[in-house]
Amino acid sequence: MSKRKHRPKRENLLTSPGTLTYIGPDNELKTKIRKIQYSEKFYKNEAVTSLAECAANPSLEPHITWLDVDGIHETALVGKIGTLYHLHPLILEDIVNTEHKPKLEVYDTGYIFLTLKMLHVDSEEPLEISSEHVSFVTGKDYLISFQEERSDDIFNPVIERLNASVGKTRRNGTDYLVFALMDVIVDNYFLVLEKFGEKLDLVEESIISGSKRESLNDLYALKRELTFVRRAIWPLRDMINQLIREDNSLISKEVVPYYRDLYDHTMQALDTVDSYRELLASLADVHLSTISNRMNAVMKTLTIFSAIFMPLTFIVGVYGMNFENMPELKNPYGYYYTWGVMAIVTVGMILYFKAKKWM
Amino acid sequence: MSKRKHRPKRENLLTSPGTLTYIGPDNELKTKIRKIQYSEKFYKNEAVTSLAECAANPSLEPHITWLDVDGIHETALVGKIGTLYHLHPLILEDIVNTEHKPKLEVYDTGYIFLTLKMLHVDSEEPLEISSEHVSFVTGKDYLISFQEERSDDIFNPVIERLNASVGKTRRNGTDYLVFALMDVIVDNYFLVLEKFGEKLDLVEESIISGSKRESLNDLYALKRELTFVRRAIWPLRDMINQLIREDNSLISKEVVPYYRDLYDHTMQALDTVDSYRELLASLADVHLSTISNRMNAVMKTLTIFSAIFMPLTFIVGVYGMNFENMPELKNPYGYYYTWGVMAIVTVGMILYFKAKKWM
Amino acid sequence: MSKRKHRPKRENLLTSPGTLTYIGPDNELKTKIRKIQYSEKFYKNEAVTSLAECAANPSLEPHITWLDVDGIHETALVGKIGTLYHLHPLILEDIVNTEHKPKLEVYDTGYIFLTLKMLHVDSEEPLEISSEHVSFVTGKDYLISFQEERSDDIFNPVIERLNASVGKTRRNGTDYLVFALMDVIVDNYFLVLEKFGEKLDLVEESIISGSKRESLNDLYALKRELTFVRRAIWPLRDMINQLIREDNSLISKEVVPYYRDLYDHTMQALDTVDSYRELLASLADVHLSTISNRMNAVMKTLTIFSAIFMPLTFIVGVYGMNFENMPELKNPYGYYYTWGVMAIVTVGMILYFKAKKWM
Amino acid sequence: MSKRKHRPKRENLLTSPGTLTYIGPDNELKTKIRKIQYSEKFYKNEAVTSLAECAANPSLEPHITWLDVDGIHETALVGKIGTLYHLHPLILEDIVNTEHKPKLEVYDTGYIFLTLKMLHVDSEEPLEISSEHVSFVTGKDYLISFQEERSDDIFNPVIERLNASVGKTRRNGTDYLVFALMDVIVDNYFLVLEKFGEKLDLVEESIISGSKRESLNDLYALKRELTFVRRAIWPLRDMINQLIREDNSLISKEVVPYYRDLYDHTMQALDTVDSYRELLASLADVHLSTISNRMNAVMKTLTIFSAIFMPLTFIVGVYGMNFENMPELKNPYGYYYTWGVMAIVTVGMILYFKAKKWM
Amino acid sequence: MSKRKHRPKRENLLTSPGTLTYIGPDNELKTKIRKIQYSEKFYKNEAVTSLAECAANPSLEPHITWLDVDGIHETALVGKIGTLYHLHPLILEDIVNTEHKPKLEVYDTGYIFLTLKMLHVDSEEPLEISSEHVSFVTGKDYLISFQEERSDDIFNPVIERLNASVGKTRRNGTDYLVFALMDVIVDNYFLVLEKFGEKLDLVEESIISGSKRESLNDLYALKRELTFVRRAIWPLRDMINQLIREDNSLISKEVVPYYRDLYDHTMQALDTVDSYRELLASLADVHLSTISNRMNAVMKTLTIFSAIFMPLTFIVGVYGMNFENMPELKNPYGYYYTWGVMAIVTVGMILYFKAKKWM
Repeated sequence: MSKRKHRPKRENLLTSPGTLTYIGPDNELKTKIRKIQYSEKFYKNEAVTSLAECAANPSLEPHITWLDVDGIHETALVGKIGTLYHLHPLILEDIVNTEHKPKLEVYDTGYIFLTLKMLHVDSEEPLEISSEHVSFVTGKDYLISFQEERSDDIFNPVIERLNASVGKTRRNGTDYLVFALMDVIVDNYFLVLEKFGEKLDLVEESIISGSKRESLNDLYALKRELTFVRRAIWPLRDMINQLIREDNSLISKEVVPYYRDLYDHTMQALDTVDSYRELLASLADVHLSTISNRMNAVMKTLTIFSAIFMPLTFIVGVYGMNFENMPELKNPYGYYYTWGVMAIVTVGMILYFKAKKWM
Repeated sequence: MSKRKHRPKRENLLTSPGTLTYIGPDNELKTKIRKIQYSEKFYKNEAVTSLAECAANPSLEPHITWLDVDGIHETALVGKIGTLYHLHPLILEDIVNTEHKPKLEVYDTGYIFLTLKMLHVDSEEPLEISSEHVSFVTGKDYLISFQEERSDDIFNPVIERLNASVGKTRRNGTDYLVFALMDVIVDNYFLVLEKFGEKLDLVEESIISGSKRESLNDLYALKRELTFVRRAIWPLRDMINQLIREDNSLISKEVVPYYRDLYDHTMQALDTVDSYRELLASLADVHLSTISNRMNAVMKTLTIFSAIFMPLTFIVGVYGMNFENMPELKNPYGYYYTWGVMAIVTVGMILYFKAKKWM
Repeated sequence: MSKRKHRPKRENLLTSPGTLTYIGPDNELKTKIRKIQYSEKFYKNEAVTSLAECAANPSLEPHITWLDVDGIHETALVGKIGTLYHLHPLILEDIVNTEHKPKLEVYDTGYIFLTLKMLHVDSEEPLEISSEHVSFVTGKDYLISFQEERSDDIFNPVIERLNASVGKTRRNGTDYLVFALMDVIVDNYFLVLEKFGEKLDLVEESIISGSKRESLNDLYALKRELTFVRRAIWPLRDMINQLIREDNSLISKEVVPYYRDLYDHTMQALDTVDSYRELLASLADVHLSTISNRMNAVMKTLTIFSAIFMPLTFIVGVYGMNFENMPELKNPYGYYYTWGVMAIVTVGMILYFKAKKWM
Repeated sequence: MSKRKHRPKRENLLTSPGTLTYIGPDNELKTKIRKIQYSEKFYKNEAVTSLAECAANPSLEPHITWLDVDGIHETALVGKIGTLYHLHPLILEDIVNTEHKPKLEVYDTGYIFLTLKMLHVDSEEPLEISSEHVSFVTGKDYLISFQEERSDDIFNPVIERLNASVGKTRRNGTDYLVFALMDVIVDNYFLVLEKFGEKLDLVEESIISGSKRESLNDLYALKRELTFVRRAIWPLRDMINQLIREDNSLISKEVVPYYRDLYDHTMQALDTVDSYRELLASLADVHLSTISNRMNAVMKTLTIFSAIFMPLTFIVGVYGMNFENMPELKNPYGYYYTWGVMAIVTVGMILYFKAKKWM
Repeated sequence: MSKRKHRPKRENLLTSPGTLTYIGPDNELKTKIRKIQYSEKFYKNEAVTSLAECAANPSLEPHITWLDVDGIHETALVGKIGTLYHLHPLILEDIVNTEHKPKLEVYDTGYIFLTLKMLHVDSEEPLEISSEHVSFVTGKDYLISFQEERSDDIFNPVIERLNASVGKTRRNGTDYLVFALMDVIVDNYFLVLEKFGEKLDLVEESIISGSKRESLNDLYALKRELTFVRRAIWPLRDMINQLIREDNSLISKEVVPYYRDLYDHTMQALDTVDSYRELLASLADVHLSTISNRMNAVMKTLTIFSAIFMPLTFIVGVYGMNFENMPELKNPYGYYYTWGVMAIVTVGMILYFKAKKWM
């Protein structure tokens, strides 16, 4: 069984609001920052080594700056980037709080703050799914993405597309870039759900065939993982909806259909989650019924054995009595007659249980 | 049990949005395209062999062009038709994504996009229902319908009516044509639900009579098929509602009552689905209670046998002891007395269990 | 168990919308039509024999014409009446579709269409409830009521009141007449629910006393009938609400309180249905618990018998052994001592089970 | 178990709407009417003996008239009071219909009609709760209260406060008087819920200790009483809300906070009801689990007895065989060896079951 | 099991509304009042000894007065403070009613009334959580906080921050002070939930390993505590939402983001509560299934023993019969053959049960 811990994680309790406290897994890796600058005409991707390089470059022609911060455990660094881009302290608190649930906030000062969950399959047997806390802050011409430090970078497909050709991403603004990054995350949900579906197929087979004993605990572990997945995906629904409806100048009209498409995909993922939930519930019912049926079979076996051998044992007991006057004992065929009677009793019992469909 | 797979199907994951990827069953049949042109005055139905023929014919007098595309696995072809009619790439993605759930989208550029599910009974024993992905794109004077390639064409009744006479369909616009095609699909739901109802009658009978063992798995398979059907029908409710309410110029006021009628039929289908669901739940309860009752009967049988034969075996055991001084053994009638005692015990037990209503 | 069929009934599938198809029970009786004309000053009730007589009589002073059509299986006749009063073909379809659920439609052309369900208790043991499809079309000065042909006419109380005296019905318009007819139907629901309540009392008693075996199937049958009743009554709630709120000229302000009263009664009927539902669920729980308790009792009996007789049988078995050297066998009181030991064992066991409260 | 009847009570079915029919318990007591007149300056409380005295007294200085009608079984009298104060016939119907659920109606003609339920604990063992139908009709300067005739008058505390001093009630209008009377009724709910809580404590204790057999039926009876209580209180929530929001001239702004307080108390009562419901559900689960545990214990006892005595009985059976050549029988210590083997088997079994934690 | 009492607590029933009645635990401690005055420039914290000192000090430069009343059992004192600050009597009633659920009320007269619950872990084994009733009344330049007298003061962290430096709290108005105090309370919820999570881990482990018998009662007790916690936290959601949305002049725009953050934390706490609820439900299922599995194991053991020893006992019974003519008895190897047959039967049975996977 997966060892999901049952404890709310909030370490900055009782400190002044806005204090940055990282509560995710310990992480030795150093924060990596990449700065990608592009417009339809040019594209530049460089690793950032000093805080000064993090700032946008106003001297260039109009372009988009994407700052990809890989690692949020160095809260001091996050704080400095926040200061550089004039972000509200409470946003910074949410960026480093890996337990914060997905949310969207539109700030009057012209930027949008988004936080969501990337899902990873940590282990397949038993199935364990973990989430990575990803945040975006986006203005008219910049996007800062924050993610927990992991070995594989989830945004590589988008970077490759940016690099490869002057496609839709290069032609559009930060609104399309945000969409592209969220799309990668949502597409990833389907990969996770596929793993889940494979596992579910195995459990279903084992439950219906009744071959494995620990099935219910497996079901229970799967249910918890599924609840975890659902909690990660569910808030996206409202967030995207809000992005589409929100009367803001940051999402242009041409990009709205892409967000609507993203919404559809999110709904499809949630639908899959819900159908898995129903399936798990059905499987639990089947499991319980299988247990009952098996108990029934055990009881029938016991009853059949008892009903056949109790009368026989009684009969042989009768002729084991030591009464002086028991005429049957002297009959030379008494022993054989007794066997005959016992054969009749046995056959009768078997016929009776066959009639009752217990055999 | 039906082998519905538990996996979300989306193959174009991590590709650029708008990439066309067909994920339905493999299909060797070539795409068939029919072009039907009609107005109140004329009617023309021809098989289309080249892409050029797919375009509407503006030189004719005002008429309606219905392009019926039978087969969506050739995504390149779908893409070309999309280009010909200036459809948004995301629409094309939804047309070929056979797992996309039913939805309606009204585009500012003057066309409506609709996608829904045709249901087919693939197998009756066990009951297996599959869905066919059907899409409509309709403007003022054209309708393009996309369906998966199947041997039987579901729109034949409408084509026959168009051909047969100058009826309501010929006199009205594309709004009525869309209604007529959707009506065929919704009517078909009732045929599928009828098969379902027949199957349900059988399962109900078998459960109430308690004759079949694998009833619960049957119930569970039916429940899954029903959930599948429900997911296919459910979104129609909102779609038709939106079509009626939507303040669009594409649905004329005269045709609205027909859509309202279609809405009623959809609700009736959903009501039937819901009553089947309740029935399945009730049957599962009856099934569980039947198992319990049967276990009870088994236990009673065992208890009655034990309670009768244990005392008898004890009695004959007593007189099987080898004590030198056991006066009863010397009594010439001891053996017969013993039988008498055993008869009394047996009758007493039977009366006791009769009184307890266990026999 | 009541033989409610699990099949959606719609026979005009795949025909052109607006085709009239009767799907109710076969009915040999000929359609009977009565025409009642009244105002505060006069009252006339005549059987109609020709279609021409069905039309309103404009030459008379202002009055209300109520056409009561008893029998909807002659769809041709219904169609002709529809033509006479200029009714929309889809309304006629709903009038003859006995499976259509209750609904209200207000037409711009100045008439209201209402369809609802009259409930009948067909059989009391087992309880079987059937519904009769009743429709009203009402304009400013006419009302056409359609009902399935049955031996007893449900509207008699209203006709009698109309005839008897110049009461509220005679003084008011068609809005009050519609109310009066609906009131009769809703009052009838209470009569049906009363029969249901009586049956429920019997089943409750039998379950709590645990006397009858087939109780769960009874519960299940009752639940299905109740669901049937609920489906018939539920839509009335919205319909009446809509009639009250709808800003239409057909319901006058003076009559609104009566509709509000009708609404209260409908809610009271639904409340009763819901409390019956809860009761049925509770009874199912009690039933299951009773089964468990009884199984418990059976098991205890078995265990007590086994625990008493197994040791005894063992003891007598010991002295049935044929060892040459068994000192007890030679003891002249050995047999009696053995009985003593067995008595002690038996009493000990009984005390043990008394202490455990199993006896 | 409480004998709550499962039947909707409406006796005036199929009569003309507005007919007054009393359906409460038979009641021999004569209707008692009190007329209380008060303003800040004076207070007068007199028993009314004739209908004429019921009318308000316009000759007096501005004051409030409260007519307290104790007994609604004399429907003729209620009808006459209705005529005197120009009440709508449907209101009178609701006043005498003791089964009508709580509701509020604001009439254009300047009066408010309120009906609610006073709860009484009829019996404590088993707990039986009955409701008394209380109605208020209130205008600017009069209030008529109707209640079923009971031995104790529920409004005494208010009358005493009116009499005792020139408090808030004397200084305010009928809006405050209505509040004060409703407050008495809501306060009374807490007294009833307290009795319920005491009973619940007892049942909880008996279920957790597992001492009483009939616990489930007790739970079931309590659940029904609780549902009854909930139905009585629930509609108050909306009623008070409506009184606060309703833009009417009858509730003055100063009195609104008191109604808001009343609303809070009603919510608190409903919260208590809901927590009792959850508790009952939990107790039912505990009860079922207790039954299962007990069955488990019974089965273990049986299995332990069987597993110990079956091998022993087999062993003694072996040496009860009569083969001529059985060397052990001739061994002078054979008998004692046999006892040794049996002791080892017994101890082995006991250790085995101890290891399995069955003993 | 925790002894949460099932009784609504309201002692001022049937008294005039606005009467102050303390219903919390008896409390010998005297009410302690602290008066804290601060602005950005100065800070003063003094114990209040007379009622006169409670009033704000208008002669000072503009500053904020926070009156922290520790102990609400002296209702007379609460009443006097209420008079001093012109509070509505119903507010005072809610301040001393420790059972009142959290609520927010905005008064026209320019102050806000807030009441919420502080949670305390009273005992860890079994887990017992109690709530402390905390209320705030806040105007433009004063805040009065009321809490039950406890040994530890929950607001100390805020007082320390006020004292320590000129931070956000000192620079902002009463709106930020209210936020800071509520934040302390919400942060505390996480500490309580953490204790809960630890306990849950223990119970989960004990249920999955199946080691403890009383697990279900533990589950049930935890569920009740959790429900208690949920009731305390749930209303906060609406309260904070209302504070944010409410178009009032008391919450300044700069402070709104902090309230939004508080809202997020409240939601996170509620999410944790809900996930614990689901977990408890799953554990109850696992528990029930464990019981069933164990019963199954017991039954199998019994059946295996019976099926092996019943035939053996029968066989030895056969040769214990005393027929004169039993050829086998004279066979010198008969005894050994019999053992051979019994060995075969035993091995056959064992193979049979192995094949059935019962062993």
